[in-house]
Amino acid sequence: MNLIEEKFIKLGAEFAPGQEVRQNTNEVKLRGEKISGTPVDFSHGDVDAFVPIPGTLDDFVEGVHLGAKQAYTEYRGSKVLRENVAEKLSNFTGTTIDAEQNFIITPGTQGALFLAMGATVARGDKVAIVVPDYFANRKLVEFFDGEVVPIQMDYLGTNTNAGLDLTQLEGAFKAGVKLFLFSNPNNPSGVIYSQNEIHQIAALAQKYGASVIVDQLYSRQIFDKRSYTHLCAQNILDPENMITIMGPSKTESLSGYRLGVAFGSAKIIDRMEKLQAIVSLRAGGYSQAVLKSWFAEPEGWMAERIAQHQAIRDDLVAMLRAAEGFKVRPSEAGSYLFPKLPELDVAIEEFVKVLRLQAGVIVTPGTEFGPQFTDSFRINFSQNHQAAVSAISRLIMVVEVYRK
Amino acid sequence: MNLIEEKFIKLGAEFAPGQEVRQNTNEVKLRGEKISGTPVDFSHGDVDAFVPIPGTLDDFVEGVHLGAKQAYTEYRGSKVLRENVAEKLSNFTGTTIDAEQNFIITPGTQGALFLAMGATVARGDKVAIVVPDYFANRKLVEFFDGEVVPIQMDYLGTNTNAGLDLTQLEGAFKAGVKLFLFSNPNNPSGVIYSQNEIHQIAALAQKYGASVIVDQLYSRQIFDKRSYTHLCAQNILDPENMITIMGPSKTESLSGYRLGVAFGSAKIIDRMEKLQAIVSLRAGGYSQAVLKSWFAEPEGWMAERIAQHQAIRDDLVAMLRAAEGFKVRPSEAGSYLFPKLPELDVAIEEFVKVLRLQAGVIVTPGTEFGPQFTDSFRINFSQNHQAAVSAISRLIMVVEVYRK
Repeated sequence: MNLIEEKFIKLGAEFAPGQEVRQNTNEVKLRGEKISGTPVDFSHGDVDAFVPIPGTLDDFVEGVHLGAKQAYTEYRGSKVLRENVAEKLSNFTGTTIDAEQNFIITPGTQGALFLAMGATVARGDKVAIVVPDYFANRKLVEFFDGEVVPIQMDYLGTNTNAGLDLTQLEGAFKAGVKLFLFSNPNNPSGVIYSQNEIHQIAALAQKYGASVIVDQLYSRQIFDKRSYTHLCAQNILDPENMITIMGPSKTESLSGYRLGVAFGSAKIIDRMEKLQAIVSLRAGGYSQAVLKSWFAEPEGWMAERIAQHQAIRDDLVAMLRAAEGFKVRPSEAGSYLFPKLPELDVAIEEFVKVLRLQAGVIVTPGTEFGPQFTDSFRINFSQNHQAAVSAISRLIMVVEVYRK
Repeated sequence: MNLIEEKFIKLGAEFAPGQEVRQNTNEVKLRGEKISGTPVDFSHGDVDAFVPIPGTLDDFVEGVHLGAKQAYTEYRGSKVLRENVAEKLSNFTGTTIDAEQNFIITPGTQGALFLAMGATVARGDKVAIVVPDYFANRKLVEFFDGEVVPIQMDYLGTNTNAGLDLTQLEGAFKAGVKLFLFSNPNNPSGVIYSQNEIHQIAALAQKYGASVIVDQLYSRQIFDKRSYTHLCAQNILDPENMITIMGPSKTESLSGYRLGVAFGSAKIIDRMEKLQAIVSLRAGGYSQAVLKSWFAEPEGWMAERIAQHQAIRDDLVAMLRAAEGFKVRPSEAGSYLFPKLPELDVAIEEFVKVLRLQAGVIVTPGTEFGPQFTDSFRINFSQNHQAAVSAISRLIMVVEVYRK
C-alpha cells in the first residue's frame, strides 16, 4: 500500500455524523419489528426545530446586493465584518482582538480547525488531544502526519470539573508535545472545564513553550448559570501561542451558511490565511454578511434558546437514568450528551445501524470520539422536544432487545 | 527554522490575486503624478459588470426555506443536486457521470482542486505541473510535501495549439511522475489545448500509469467558435485515473456562493469526501441550491456573455499590440490575458505596486504563475468594457515612465 492509501484508510468517514446514508447495511439483521415514530437524526442539531437567528437571510440578501465587494473579500474575510465580529467577541470573551492582525473568518468552525491545525502541525510533531473529544481532532493530527498523544478525561468520575488528567498533560509536554487541542465545552460530553483546569492548562503550556488551540463552538449555550472560563482572557499563556475558535453553526443554527472564526496569534492567523488561499480562498463572500446578526440577536432570544435546550436535556437525562444500565453526566453546556450503554451483544457500530433501521433514530458511535468508547454514543439534542423524547424511548426499547 | 515555518514561507500570498490591500507599499516611490480614472481590479472578474446568472438568489432563498435538509447535506453534497448537475455535465462533456460514485460538490473550484490534490499527493510524490499555470498548483504540491516537476508551455511560440512540451512530459512520467495537473483553457494565458495535445497527454498518462487532474473552470467561455476537447470523454486514459474540475465562479459570476464540482475516479472522489469531512464538512448547504441555475441559463445568455467578453478581449489585445514592446497572444477561452511587458527598470513586484498606487489598476505579476515570468502580468478582463479599456491605456502610460 502506498502512502496516500495509508493516509486515507485512517481518515474513514463511514460513521461520521451526517454520513449515515452512505453506510453499508446489507448485512444488518434486525431482531423483531420496526418501531415506528418520527425519525430523529441526533448526529447534528435540527435547524427546523431551532431556526436560525431572525434576520440572517436578510443579511445574506443585502450581501448579495453589495455585489463584487462582498463576493471577493480578502482571504481572511471582509474587513468591515472582521471589525464588527472582533469587537463583539472581545466583549464576550473579555480580551482584546485586533480585527486586522488577530482575526480570520473561515468556512465553518470545521474550516477554522482545519486551518489552525494545518498552520501549526508539521510531520512528526506530537500533538496532545483529549479523549474523548471531537472526532475530527485525531483525524486532523493524522492527516498532517503528526503523532497523537492522548490525554484522558474522566468526565463520568467527577462533577466539579471536566476531569482532565493534568498530570498526563504535563507528562506529554515534558515528552515534547508542542500543541494541545481541546474543545470547551467538551464535545461529546458537554462538560465545562473548571477555572482551575483552564489555569493549569495555560500555565503548563506556558511553562513548556507549547501552543493551545481551544474550540469554543458551544461556549454561549451554558446551562444552570454555570461559569465559563475563556482561556484567551486569563493572561497566563503567551497570546502568540494561542488560537480560539468559534462559530454560529450550533446554538445559532447558521450551519447552512458555513461560517466560523478564529482569533489569537497574529503569526498563526497569517499562516491560516495563506492556507485558506489554497484551500477554498475564503468563507463564502455573501455568507460572511450573515455574521452581522451573530451576537446581535433580539433581546431574550439567546436566553429562551438556552432554556429550551436545558429542558430537553433534563427530560432525556431523566429517561436515560431511569433505564437500567445507562450512565450519563448531564451536559453543562452545548447540545451534546454522551451516554454509556449497558452491555450489548452487538458491537457499537452494528448497534447504531440497527437503531437507524429499526427505530429511525440516528446517533453517533462513541468510537468516533476515542477508540475505547465502544459502549457510548453521542446525541445532539437540539431537536424538536417531543420527537427527541420519543426517539430516546425507542432507543431504550432497542437496547432492551440487544442487551447481553 | 522548523518544518512548519519552512512550509509557510513557500506559501507566500502577498502577490496573490485579491490580497493587494495587504501589501507593504511604504517603500514604493512613484515617478510623476497619479493618473486618474475608474479603478479597475484585474486580479479577478467584476461581478458588478457581469452579474450572476438570473434567478440564483431565488434558488438560494428556496434552499434556505428547505431548512435542515439543505443545511446538512452529505459531505459530497446534496444527492438531488448531484444528480441534477451530473446529468448536465455529462451532456456538456460528452461522458457519463454517476452522481452517486463519481461526483462531489466543493466549496469553490479552489476547494475541488485542494481536495483532489490532497487525495492524490503524498510526501515525496513527483507531480508535473505546467509553466505557466494557475498559481495555486505549485503551492498545493509543496503544501502536500510533493516535488514539483515543471513542464514548459511555449504559448507565445505557436497559435495552433497550447504549446505544451510533450517530450518533457513523457520524460517526467519516465522519471516517476504519477500525477499531472493542468488547467484547460490555460490560466493565465487563455490558450486551449489542441485535440492532439489532449490525446497525447491522455495516451502518455495511460502508458505510464499516471493520473491526470484537469481544471476546466473556464471551459464554457470559448471564443471564435473554437473547438474544445474534454479529456474525460476521449476514452484513452483509465477513468479511475482522472479527475475533472469545474465550477460556476467565473463565466457565471457565482464566486460569492463558493461552489465548485469535481467528477471522475470513484476512488479519488471517495478520498476527497473524507478529506472534505475534516476541511470544511461540505460546500455551504444553502449555496448548493444555486447549482440548479448552472447550465440552465436563459436562452442566449451564455452566447451574449461570450460575445461581450470577446469584444473586450479584442480591444485590449489591439491596444497592447499597438504599444511598443508588448507581446500578447489573444486568449482563446476564459477571461485572462497574459501579456509580456517591454523591459522595465523596476522589478515586476514593484511595478504592480506602482501601477496600483499611481493609476488605480490592479494586475497580478507573472511570477505568481512561474518564476521566470518576471516580464509578464495577468489580467482578468471580465470588467466593465470602458473601464477596462481606460485602465489598460493607463497601464501603457505607466509602462512608458518605467521603461528601461
